[in-house]
Amino acid sequence: MPEFFDVVTPEEALRRFQAHVPICTGTERVQLKEALGRVTSEDVHSPGDLPSFPRSTMDGYAVRAADTFGASESIPAYLNLAGEVPMGRPAGITLSVGDAAKVHTGSMLADGADAVVMVENTHQVDASTIEVVRPVAPGENVIQVGEDVKSGDLLIQAGQWLRPQDIGGLSAVGITELAVCLRPKVAILSTGDEVVHPDAEVSPGQIRDINTYTIAGLARQAGAIPVPLGIVPDDYGQLVEAVRRGLEEGDLVIISAGSSVSTRDMTAQVISSLGEPGILVHGISIKPGKPTILAVVDGKPIVGLPGNPVSRDRGKGRRSSLTHNLFQYPCHLSCRL
Amino acid sequence: MPEFFDVVTPEEALRRFQAHVPICTGTERVQLKEALGRVTSEDVHSPGDLPSFPRSTMDGYAVRAADTFGASESIPAYLNLAGEVPMGRPAGITLSVGDAAKVHTGSMLADGADAVVMVENTHQVDASTIEVVRPVAPGENVIQVGEDVKSGDLLIQAGQWLRPQDIGGLSAVGITELAVCLRPKVAILSTGDEVVHPDAEVSPGQIRDINTYTIAGLARQAGAIPVPLGIVPDDYGQLVEAVRRGLEEGDLVIISAGSSVSTRDMTAQVISSLGEPGILVHGISIKPGKPTILAVVDGKPIVGLPGNPVSRDRGKGRRSSLTHNLFQYPCHLSCRL
Repeated sequence: MPEFFDVVTPEEALRRFQAHVPICTGTERVQLKEALGRVTSEDVHSPGDLPSFPRSTMDGYAVRAADTFGASESIPAYLNLAGEVPMGRPAGITLSVGDAAKVHTGSMLADGADAVVMVENTHQVDASTIEVVRPVAPGENVIQVGEDVKSGDLLIQAGQWLRPQDIGGLSAVGITELAVCLRPKVAILSTGDEVVHPDAEVSPGQIRDINTYTIAGLARQAGAIPVPLGIVPDDYGQLVEAVRRGLEEGDLVIISAGSSVSTRDMTAQVISSLGEPGILVHGISIKPGKPTILAVVDGKPIVGLPGNPVSRDRGKGRRSSLTHNLFQYPCHLSCRL
Repeated sequence: MPEFFDVVTPEEALRRFQAHVPICTGTERVQLKEALGRVTSEDVHSPGDLPSFPRSTMDGYAVRAADTFGASESIPAYLNLAGEVPMGRPAGITLSVGDAAKVHTGSMLADGADAVVMVENTHQVDASTIEVVRPVAPGENVIQVGEDVKSGDLLIQAGQWLRPQDIGGLSAVGITELAVCLRPKVAILSTGDEVVHPDAEVSPGQIRDINTYTIAGLARQAGAIPVPLGIVPDDYGQLVEAVRRGLEEGDLVIISAGSSVSTRDMTAQVISSLGEPGILVHGISIKPGKPTILAVVDGKPIVGLPGNPVSRDRGKGRRSSLTHNLFQYPCHLSCRL
């Protein structure tokens, strides 16, 4: 009775697989707003500092911190109100000793200021005077130029799947176009004499194809283009032809293989017959999903999944319900691969 | 200094909001394979049993369990091999006392069989005889009809966002078309005198619009259609007009509001002026994101977000870096809303 050659950890499985799989099958430049769910094909560095000016993090007053040293409720510091910094414009105010300028959260500091006193720690005495009742240290309530991101900083590495927050982060530094990988085409084969299309009425002994739709959804969710190639019977010749077609039409082939030991072995034999390096991993220490095959043929990855979502460690005699596993199984796939 | 009226927990905020927000703005029927990321508009029940026939979970032999009682390595049970159940077809074999039928993982049980002996616990003696070296209990290694899903079982509730595994689960019971909500249109407004388009060169005091792209990405990820309406200056009249336009063009309006207290108040005032019931929540105990506003005007939800991704609890004087928060903030949004 053939058993798994060599069950490896998910980390080791991924390591072996990724050593043979390129980040991209090709690249293109896309507008940032169309880049959601795409994968970067090169490292992205910041073209500038963020913030690009010293910025208040509070509503309050930009001050020279030294002018507030020792201030308290009983002995406030009295400062001359030199003006108000408008939002979105250069400060246009230079502080002399004993001056303060009104600022808002996000506005630029006045020239000469090195800290911001929160409005709550001040009282306006008259139109041109405020009192400060708590001291601030230099830099307090201020984000310095480049404190968040420095010009040249690595923002996003090659091979990163772009999330909404990544898109936002890139727009913050003014990157509105970038290089991404072409969407890979994922050829999907479902195999098994017992498997019929979801549209079909099932006769005794038959089950509907679950895996094509599930895998297509995972592929789409990952930013790939699913290419469903239908259901293949448990026949060596037909499976060879189908996998060959998958390699022609897809950048990646996913086979949900028959669940019996003999059909699993057939999948492995078919893959091995098609080219080098062939099977890299046969058996991963995940449950369900242990009989997973990872292979590469002529530079294209092939994944062989156990066809039955309840497929599990043989010989333990344990069985989870299909519904439970159905909703767990794809996570193993998407979380691991 | 105005403060938040009433800071509530995220759970309470959602409860209040959802009480006013319909699951759908309209429904349509879609093909299952196009349903990824759509939201169900009605409960979905199973039209049939799963499995629809008693199914082996092992490669082995379908037997009458009673025929194996007491079997051991030293005193095996000898059974007559009555045939092999083909994959994907009715068993076509009826077991008499002392009979066994070869089965594969996923194949139908022979009539009269009530258990499966794993192949590992058998030896084939000759073409028509096997010996069984361990007993099985009735039901062992068998999934009964309807054990996973019974006809009429609730599979998916109305209002569920469909994941790949949901699509797979529905295909398992032969549902290939279903009713979903129309994709909601999410009008997005970014406000602030200091905010400029990501394409723009920034002058001192200005920052690029991060939120439009981030929110558009989150909306798209959630299955909605983003409708970006641009950047609105901190001007009451212009903000009223912009939110009104948002209510016309969108099913939901998201405003990333100015970050100073005064501009936050302006957003609240504008929303309150536009209709009933107006603001439901102003202040949520999340960080960052505390000044979030949830409102409903004439049946359409409005969300007011603090514009500055570092916006946080006022008065604590703590500040996290923009980059850190930038990549955290949208999660609060997407995880919470």
